[in-house]
Amino acid sequence: MDIRIDIDRLSRELETLASFTDSLPPSVTRVLYTPTDLAAREYLKGLCREAGLEVREDPLGNTFACWIGEDPQAGAVGTGSHIDAIPHAGRYDGTVGVLGGLEALRALKSAGFRPKRSLELLIFTSEEPTRFGIGCLGSRMLSGALSPEAARKLEDKDGKTLEEARWEAGFLGELEEVPLPKGYYSAFVELHIEQGPILERQQIPLGVVTAIAAPASLRLIIEGEGGHAGAVLMHERHDAFLAAAEIALAAEAAARATGAPDTVATSGVCEVFPGAINSVPSLVRLELDIRDIDLLRRDGVVNAVYKACEAQRKKRGVHIGLEVLNADPPAHSSPKVVEALDRACAAYGLNYLTMVSRAYHDSLFMARIAPTAMLFIPCKNGWSHRPDEYAAPEHIEQGVRVLAHALAELAGS
Amino acid sequence: MDIRIDIDRLSRELETLASFTDSLPPSVTRVLYTPTDLAAREYLKGLCREAGLEVREDPLGNTFACWIGEDPQAGAVGTGSHIDAIPHAGRYDGTVGVLGGLEALRALKSAGFRPKRSLELLIFTSEEPTRFGIGCLGSRMLSGALSPEAARKLEDKDGKTLEEARWEAGFLGELEEVPLPKGYYSAFVELHIEQGPILERQQIPLGVVTAIAAPASLRLIIEGEGGHAGAVLMHERHDAFLAAAEIALAAEAAARATGAPDTVATSGVCEVFPGAINSVPSLVRLELDIRDIDLLRRDGVVNAVYKACEAQRKKRGVHIGLEVLNADPPAHSSPKVVEALDRACAAYGLNYLTMVSRAYHDSLFMARIAPTAMLFIPCKNGWSHRPDEYAAPEHIEQGVRVLAHALAELAGS
Repeated sequence: MDIRIDIDRLSRELETLASFTDSLPPSVTRVLYTPTDLAAREYLKGLCREAGLEVREDPLGNTFACWIGEDPQAGAVGTGSHIDAIPHAGRYDGTVGVLGGLEALRALKSAGFRPKRSLELLIFTSEEPTRFGIGCLGSRMLSGALSPEAARKLEDKDGKTLEEARWEAGFLGELEEVPLPKGYYSAFVELHIEQGPILERQQIPLGVVTAIAAPASLRLIIEGEGGHAGAVLMHERHDAFLAAAEIALAAEAAARATGAPDTVATSGVCEVFPGAINSVPSLVRLELDIRDIDLLRRDGVVNAVYKACEAQRKKRGVHIGLEVLNADPPAHSSPKVVEALDRACAAYGLNYLTMVSRAYHDSLFMARIAPTAMLFIPCKNGWSHRPDEYAAPEHIEQGVRVLAHALAELAGS
Repeated sequence: MDIRIDIDRLSRELETLASFTDSLPPSVTRVLYTPTDLAAREYLKGLCREAGLEVREDPLGNTFACWIGEDPQAGAVGTGSHIDAIPHAGRYDGTVGVLGGLEALRALKSAGFRPKRSLELLIFTSEEPTRFGIGCLGSRMLSGALSPEAARKLEDKDGKTLEEARWEAGFLGELEEVPLPKGYYSAFVELHIEQGPILERQQIPLGVVTAIAAPASLRLIIEGEGGHAGAVLMHERHDAFLAAAEIALAAEAAARATGAPDTVATSGVCEVFPGAINSVPSLVRLELDIRDIDLLRRDGVVNAVYKACEAQRKKRGVHIGLEVLNADPPAHSSPKVVEALDRACAAYGLNYLTMVSRAYHDSLFMARIAPTAMLFIPCKNGWSHRPDEYAAPEHIEQGVRVLAHALAELAGS
């Protein structure tokens, strides 16, 4: 079967999708359920319908575009990723797996392929934690890892609940309808940029992911005591920001102390209240992201953060509320899907690296309900979550072709 | 002369003024040139006109309410303070000196006093640095400490210039018209809450300020390198927030190291970009406020911040731009005005403490162009810049009565 990828069309579509942004191009900001997110979804659904796929959405906004196979009862073969983008991010994270997955299906159609199992493109709702503080919202609920009860408790920082937000966005129905029945997918493959420097450095065009790291996300609310910057003596202070500073540095030290390159700790959010130059900070919201492919090592860093909080309570007389937003176990890929990717690479004489993902992906949760694997392509300098994130067209093309070949084998004919 | 203070009216007026806020009461947020600030100004100008004072405004929005004396050519006697409030502050900082100053003039009128020199209430524009990052904007320009050229360069964090902002607020004319002619005031007295705990602890109703501390304000723009929190290895990072954390802690350590209670250092602003839990901070805006009544000790702490920046450049490979927003010399009170306050206290048998102000005041700049002193009243727990800032009516009443008596002596009859 001769699978031809229209990389020019795909590149144009990636460019068009990037134009749906709430920040200045080339940066991309696309947050869950914003008018910009909804407009981008409309654009994608249009492309899927043009491709002759049947589009449906669930009450959370997860979007399915199905190419019905000759045996519609058999478990489908899924591919896909996400289109939401954190503030001031780039244009390839997630979108390569969505538009690339669509192009793979289109390429198989034009190649005259007739799938036995249905082939389905899945666009996950909110892989990024930007709005509700929890990553992989869509795949968490599809897999049952996040219960409807827990989801109904989620609020954004303006106090709007997930329920209100999805209704306003036009996604009605009950969250109980979201989890997928067991066996819905017989296989799932996610194409994604590496978001790391390894493939580029080793000049290998593809990576097949055998495991996805276990992230833990913590939210700390640190309450100190405010006051006038000129009037409150140093020894009388309970400075919430200085407590946050010491905790963030303790997390960094603990992550470095494991000696393992796979341990990372990041304090990406620090909001200081009241936030005036002449006012002692009385309240701080600090959010930490701690990851490792080794659960024990990761939890060692999490414990170091707990210890640092305790030390700051004593040292500065601040109150610290600590909330574990998520602490997920690592996922392991399905040998069946990995082998399909291996044969697809071989079919095109492409070398690949088996690797681990330290980044978070919807596949982390899809792996709980379906045989799953991921396919990585290189990205420039390993950069992502920044406007200069970049993946070369030839790498995207190779990734999509291998994806299409693997999907065809998994779907059967 | 029997000076009667209508403390009930004054308390009601303080309460009404506090209702002009952009945050939830009891917190007060009133930022320069916002609709809320402009509405509060209208309320005050109305009260001044009702009191029979002649109201004028300069091109910056400094507001003068004058009771013309029998010798209009003689240098006037001024009193006043500010009404702007940092985010989520209280209702007494500044406002006690404005509404209290107005009540003092009203009390003198009803007592039948006829001033030889004009008596003038002055409401300064933006004592707080909230919007343009520089404190005492109004008094800086009135005293010539801030040149029109420098003022025209000021921008708020949205990039709006002071010029655009004041024009939009309806304050036209040239900034060159703002500086006061030498000798405009023969004396100036500012009534203010202490913003410190000393008077309350010693149970002394009044403080006469003999010196005002010298504040320095620094703005640091720290540029690191962003990236995905899962993908960028720890040793490859250039984390702008962790650099800010170490600099803030270094400033605290240096302030404590002087051993003098009058040395204070505060990092009140820390804005982290992009501010997502799974993104390495690429840019941070850190603002520090460093004060002391001793210029050398204060500059020692400022130098420690410079050293910390240099250390972070080396350690983390970040770029740090450092801007000194202001570094003012201390001010000393005029013996003539201090003696007038001393006699006024004696006239009512009130004990007072001579003290130093570590907080910033417009009097710091008025002292450059007029014989100046300040009168402090106690505030609860020394708290200010917070919603539970509080001054007792009896303390306000005693302060206003002493102020009125001193103003009468300084104006002559």
